[in-house]
Amino acid sequence: MQKSRSDSPALKVAFLGGVGEIGKNMTALEFAGDIIVVDCGSCFPNVDMPGVDLVIPDVSYLMANKDRVRGIVLTHGHEDHIGALPYVLRELNVPVYGTKITLALVEAKLRELKVENTSLNIVKPGTIVQFGCFKVEFVNVSHSIAGSCALAITTPIGIVFHTGDFKIDYTPIDGNVINLQRIAEIGNNGVLLLLAESTNVERLGSSMSESTVGASFNNIFAENTERRIFIATFASNIHRLQQIIDIAIKYKRKVAFCGRSMINVAAAAQRIGELRYSEDVIVDIDKINKVPDKELVIITTGSQGEPMSALTRMASDEMAKVKLGYNDTVIISASPIPGNERMVYNVINNLYRHGCRVIYESLAEVHVSGHAYQEELKLIHSLIKPRFFMPVHGEHRHQKKHAELAMKMGMPSSNIIVPDIGNQVHVKKRTMSLGDNVLAGPLLVDGLGVGDVGSTVLRDRKHLAEEGLFIIVIGVDKDMGQITSVDVISRGFVYNEDAEELLENAKQVVLKTTEKVDLKQLEDYTGYKSLVRKEVKSYLFKETHRSPMILPIITET
Amino acid sequence: MQKSRSDSPALKVAFLGGVGEIGKNMTALEFAGDIIVVDCGSCFPNVDMPGVDLVIPDVSYLMANKDRVRGIVLTHGHEDHIGALPYVLRELNVPVYGTKITLALVEAKLRELKVENTSLNIVKPGTIVQFGCFKVEFVNVSHSIAGSCALAITTPIGIVFHTGDFKIDYTPIDGNVINLQRIAEIGNNGVLLLLAESTNVERLGSSMSESTVGASFNNIFAENTERRIFIATFASNIHRLQQIIDIAIKYKRKVAFCGRSMINVAAAAQRIGELRYSEDVIVDIDKINKVPDKELVIITTGSQGEPMSALTRMASDEMAKVKLGYNDTVIISASPIPGNERMVYNVINNLYRHGCRVIYESLAEVHVSGHAYQEELKLIHSLIKPRFFMPVHGEHRHQKKHAELAMKMGMPSSNIIVPDIGNQVHVKKRTMSLGDNVLAGPLLVDGLGVGDVGSTVLRDRKHLAEEGLFIIVIGVDKDMGQITSVDVISRGFVYNEDAEELLENAKQVVLKTTEKVDLKQLEDYTGYKSLVRKEVKSYLFKETHRSPMILPIITET
Repeated sequence: MQKSRSDSPALKVAFLGGVGEIGKNMTALEFAGDIIVVDCGSCFPNVDMPGVDLVIPDVSYLMANKDRVRGIVLTHGHEDHIGALPYVLRELNVPVYGTKITLALVEAKLRELKVENTSLNIVKPGTIVQFGCFKVEFVNVSHSIAGSCALAITTPIGIVFHTGDFKIDYTPIDGNVINLQRIAEIGNNGVLLLLAESTNVERLGSSMSESTVGASFNNIFAENTERRIFIATFASNIHRLQQIIDIAIKYKRKVAFCGRSMINVAAAAQRIGELRYSEDVIVDIDKINKVPDKELVIITTGSQGEPMSALTRMASDEMAKVKLGYNDTVIISASPIPGNERMVYNVINNLYRHGCRVIYESLAEVHVSGHAYQEELKLIHSLIKPRFFMPVHGEHRHQKKHAELAMKMGMPSSNIIVPDIGNQVHVKKRTMSLGDNVLAGPLLVDGLGVGDVGSTVLRDRKHLAEEGLFIIVIGVDKDMGQITSVDVISRGFVYNEDAEELLENAKQVVLKTTEKVDLKQLEDYTGYKSLVRKEVKSYLFKETHRSPMILPIITET
Repeated sequence: MQKSRSDSPALKVAFLGGVGEIGKNMTALEFAGDIIVVDCGSCFPNVDMPGVDLVIPDVSYLMANKDRVRGIVLTHGHEDHIGALPYVLRELNVPVYGTKITLALVEAKLRELKVENTSLNIVKPGTIVQFGCFKVEFVNVSHSIAGSCALAITTPIGIVFHTGDFKIDYTPIDGNVINLQRIAEIGNNGVLLLLAESTNVERLGSSMSESTVGASFNNIFAENTERRIFIATFASNIHRLQQIIDIAIKYKRKVAFCGRSMINVAAAAQRIGELRYSEDVIVDIDKINKVPDKELVIITTGSQGEPMSALTRMASDEMAKVKLGYNDTVIISASPIPGNERMVYNVINNLYRHGCRVIYESLAEVHVSGHAYQEELKLIHSLIKPRFFMPVHGEHRHQKKHAELAMKMGMPSSNIIVPDIGNQVHVKKRTMSLGDNVLAGPLLVDGLGVGDVGSTVLRDRKHLAEEGLFIIVIGVDKDMGQITSVDVISRGFVYNEDAEELLENAKQVVLKTTEKVDLKQLEDYTGYKSLVRKEVKSYLFKETHRSPMILPIITET
């Protein structure tokens, strides 16, 4: 008997990982016996996760289907697309595919975390890789990192087009214009499903070309001929680095790289030919004091005001080898990522306090976005003309706006699903629907631990952070039914001359509370501890309106 | 002998309080035996201050000169200009002067914190108040709160003009246009020193009139006739509330106020006649379910995504009386204050998840700023034509840009000082210079405590938050020179199946460490505790790459 259409297998698209609104970039496509994974991003913890170093996706779904995972394909080398790879490959060592620069960045990561015996496979735009029933074609796009690709994924029921992160830059620095002809051709062949990024859907018009930043830099160099120039940007924006180096050469300045990732990425990118400069242009950051101000450009990390970054440390006078002053012009060639604004502005304020001239985005055109604006998104929708659409990448509000944009272009709302983390979408030739959720979400990395910091630990950390700690050590002589000692220790709670009285009074509260308890009769101390906690808590709250974490500790003597 | 000019007394202007870049709004003017204070603001703690409720200025300088403080004059009723008053008046009960609405807001604050027997004196624009040698004239200006004033302060050596927070609105809601004629007249009489706010100095052109927001609201009401409408805005923006109420009446909708401060401020403003509505327009928030969606507008707090605010709780489904859904349109009529972006966007994303239509500033003209843009600042500089200038209010970068703006208008840089917190500036008829700093800066309020949370407590809180806590309770039999028990307790550190082994191993580390120590010989346990802390720390770091706070506690048995 022929299988009816409704029993035909669906393509299942699952959205894994990420925390809140960012770092949602790990998508698994499943068809019958095969699974492929697009990207494997990490993100930074949000403010509710004190002490957490990194957030990676929970890949339980992939682990449960381990034997069917054919490989991971990477659209580009940004952290939110590759950052979780070392952790995931440790558990699930499948082949990884990406462009040269993408894999160079992955390799550095794997080396740092000592993940070995992986299979990294370099592809070029135009390369087609077969993974079971999937055939993945890499298509060149523009973005704020070199070697970015969209993916045309041929599945047994149709083509899925995944834009990755992209913009349309007709004058990119490396001359590799986004391959709109190929994209049009793919669209012409009929696309079942489009996954397109949504980051800049709120911005009207089109993004500016990366080359316009070079023009701004040129003006700034021309106006600051006698001054030392600093430029803070993302290390991974190789094309931005190339422009700065080229302009430095034009203005007869030496270039120093500052910050660990800047030095590493520049070296790696030069090694594989993505960044072109001769060694005599470069001066070591430790030797910059031998170079006159007007002959120097320092390219530095810290464009997001990250606490440990080079620029932040310079601005706070914590970097011995670079001292800022009145003859310095600092360009912040980046936008604050939402949530980083306060840190970025603090750095800018400190730069001004040093007497620096500071040039940043709201004052000049020293940065362009790497993400498509509305008109660019519309162009992709027009060329791809998919049957179904899922807006991806960006906050939920961006995905919703992107869905609205598609509807305005004529797509019926029933053909659009706005996926959230954990959603698995079932796509068939004529239908698309939300399936059961898969196990997904944030997994916290803290030191060597992956996933061992969970909600209880975070709740305790927040409680300790906001209210501090109050430890009561009670010595009990069980035989006598008496307490022999009470000591109190507090941390992060109060620290002033009143504290002594407060601590002494708390002891009295413990003694008084104990009078009501027959210690001899106790089977264990659970109830007694609760009582002590309750009474001390209520005393402390009355006195201070604070509720520290109270830990009664009983020692039998 | 006649005093030489250089010995003549200087006007001393001291900038007190604030944390980082915000809430710097408390300025003391001192001349000979008299001191007056302009504004008395508080600000919210930054992320480095977990558990802190509020930050107020350290007024040690005023307390040291208590007998000479003649009064506090308020420019307007925003928190960053009045928020510290209850705390300061408790210590320094001097007369306070402000407009009706400003003092109504102050009064509510004082009542809440049970500060009594204060002297609040209502002034009107045009009122002149004498404070010792100072004569203060209140001058009407526009801002995002009603009853805002600039101050023309006549001192024995000349006039000081303090703009307060202002914008130039030729079509304000209450018809009280900023008194440019009087400002021009004051300028014509000769101004020694201008203190002007700097918040929007980076914005080109002029700010839009408050009335344009009403036009946007009108369009939105016209396009959402069948839907329930929510508008989140600052409670203190009485003119915005008035516009919403007026439009609601026009569209035959009832108005419900939601959120404690919204309900309180609306009631207070109506009582003193600043907000005009008849009671039959209002519906209690508890009774909104009896009103059809299309006949309702809910004005709510939470425009900054504050965690406990009404809108945030609605968006997280935590407010039983208001359930959001597909028929709701939510307008966020405010801009995120720098640092609040992440919270605001989280709320917006959650609103979208409920199916709401969301309208916010980057999509529509639903908010205008209350602070002057470049062209408005230039107008004030042109009318006032001061000899000396200090840019105030705004981050340091804004103050610096404001200084540059003044220089571009022809002011010599030697006549400008960009003050920071604690600076005291000495002004004479022909000179202005930076004097010694006065004791100033942030004072933290946590619960009932003011100033008892200092750097040690904050450092402990941060340590506890980021790394958690590890307590080691060691029972020691001093006579035998043995330890009788070791217990370990951890919080906020790890919480999984591996933890048990880790805790057990940590105990072994303690036992092993103790073998090297002759407990009988110890005078006290300080050295022993340090040793235990060091060994356990190094063990835990090796195993986890984390450094919890380690507290060894010795109990003698």
